Amino acid sequence: MARYKLILAYDGSNFSGSQRQAGKRTVQGELEKALTKLGWTGRSILLSGRTDSGVHATGQVAAADLNWSHSDSDLLRALNSLLPADLVVRALEAVDAKFHPRFDAVSRTYRYRLFCQPLRDPLRERFAWRVHPPADVSLLQGAAQPFLGTHDFSAFGSPTTPRGGTVRTVMKAAWTQTGGDEWQFEVQADAFLYRMVRRMVFLQVAAAQGKVSVEVIARSLAKQAAAEFRSVLPAGLAPAHGLTLVEVEYRS
Amino acid sequence: MARYKLILAYDGSNFSGSQRQAGKRTVQGELEKALTKLGWTGRSILLSGRTDSGVHATGQVAAADLNWSHSDSDLLRALNSLLPADLVVRALEAVDAKFHPRFDAVSRTYRYRLFCQPLRDPLRERFAWRVHPPADVSLLQGAAQPFLGTHDFSAFGSPTTPRGGTVRTVMKAAWTQTGGDEWQFEVQADAFLYRMVRRMVFLQVAAAQGKVSVEVIARSLAKQAAAEFRSVLPAGLAPAHGLTLVEVEYRS
Repeated sequence: MARYKLILAYDGSNFSGSQRQAGKRTVQGELEKALTKLGWTGRSILLSGRTDSGVHATGQVAAADLNWSHSDSDLLRALNSLLPADLVVRALEAVDAKFHPRFDAVSRTYRYRLFCQPLRDPLRERFAWRVHPPADVSLLQGAAQPFLGTHDFSAFGSPTTPRGGTVRTVMKAAWTQTGGDEWQFEVQADAFLYRMVRRMVFLQVAAAQGKVSVEVIARSLAKQAAAEFRSVLPAGLAPAHGLTLVEVEYRS
Repeated sequence: MARYKLILAYDGSNFSGSQRQAGKRTVQGELEKALTKLGWTGRSILLSGRTDSGVHATGQVAAADLNWSHSDSDLLRALNSLLPADLVVRALEAVDAKFHPRFDAVSRTYRYRLFCQPLRDPLRERFAWRVHPPADVSLLQGAAQPFLGTHDFSAFGSPTTPRGGTVRTVMKAAWTQTGGDEWQFEVQADAFLYRMVRRMVFLQVAAAQGKVSVEVIARSLAKQAAAEFRSVLPAGLAPAHGLTLVEVEYRS
C-alpha cells in the first residue's frame, strides 16, 4: 500500500463541486469510482481544498492510498482511461504515507478570467466572466494592490472551519491582460476563506466599473472595519465559471 | 418587410450542425424558433454555408426577412433574449432585399486550433484538437505553403453541390503559435469543399508528425494526381471541435 499524490484538472461546468455529495456528480465521486475499479478500498480520498460547483481546476491535488504493483505511468494511464472526459489526472507519484494535500499545503494559486463585452460570447463564457459595463483596467490593476500582505479578510468570506480564523497572507494579487478585452487575475495566498477569490474579484470589478471607490478595498481589510464594510460592500460573487484553481504549493 | 443580415457566434458542441434537420437541435432551427416569436413567417432563413456538427462559429452569416417596426438594437436585444446560451447574434443590419449570405460571399475564413499534449486537457479540448505525438511545428508552418493560390482540391473534399467544381483559391493559409504548446491555422479561400479545412489540417499534422512527407501535400494539389493521392493520403479528418468559422467576407 502506498499513498499517491495526484494532480487533477477538470472542467467544473458539469460537476457539483469537488467534494463528494450523495446523489451529485462531483470530482471526488468520479475519482473514487475510478480508483475503486483499480482496487482502492479507502473510505475517502483527500483533497487540498474544496472548489464550488462550476469552478475549474488545472492543479487540484488529491491523495489516495492504493495497492498498485505496476508502474506509476501504468497507474496514470489506467486511471485516465476510467475517468470521464471532463476530469483528468495530469500527474501522480508515490509520496510519504503522512502526506496530506490540505494540511501540508503552504499556499494556493487561483486564476480568475474575465472579458469586457456587451453581448454574450458562447465561445468564451464557459471559462470567463463577461463583464459589462466595461471595467476601467487601470483601476483594476490598482485595485489588487491592497490585498497584498497579511490582513483580516473577514469582509471577504467565512472561515472554512466553524471557529477558523480570518487572517490570511496574500503573496500575489495581480491583473494581466491576456487578450484585447480579456483580463486575468492571479492570486496566491497561504489559504483562502470560503468564496474569498470570487468576492475579491467582484469588488475589484465593481471598483473598476466606478460603482464603488477603490479606497473601499483597502479600508475593508482593516480588522475593526470588517463588520462595517461587510454591509457596505457590494454583496456579490463573481460567477464560479471564471475561476480556476491553478496550483497548490507544498514544501519540497 | 426588410432583409436583415445577422452575424452569428455559437459553441457548436451541442448543435447537430448549422443546417435545419428534423428532430435535431441545429443553429438554423434555434434561430428560426427565436425569429418566429418576433413575427417571422418565412420558410427558411439563409446561411452563408453549412458547418458540421461540433464546428463553432464567431462569424457565421445569416439572412432573414422580417417585419420589424423598432430599432435594430431593439431587434438585437429581443433576438438574443430568445436564443439559447450557446448561440448569439453578434450584430445585425437591414440590407438590400437581394442580399444572399452564400452567393454574395467573396471568401470565408476558418480557424483551426490545436495543442500538443500526451494527456487529456478538459479545459482546452472543447475548442481545440489535442495532438500527440507532438507535431514538429517548423514542418507545420512549411506544410501550409503549398495550399496558397488556385488549385484543384478534389483530394481534400467533395463539392458542396452535386456537379460543383473542385477548384478553389486560397488567399491565406498560415499557422501561428498562440501559446506554449498551442497552434492555430488560419485559412481563407473563395469557398471550401465539404470538410476541406479538416482534411487540410489532418494532412498537415500527419506531415508534422512525420507520418507522411510534406511533399505529398504539394503533389496532392495537382489535378491529375488527385485521384491517385486520394488513396495515398491518410484518410482522416481533424476533429470538428477544433474548427471555427471566423468570418464571411462580402464586397462592401
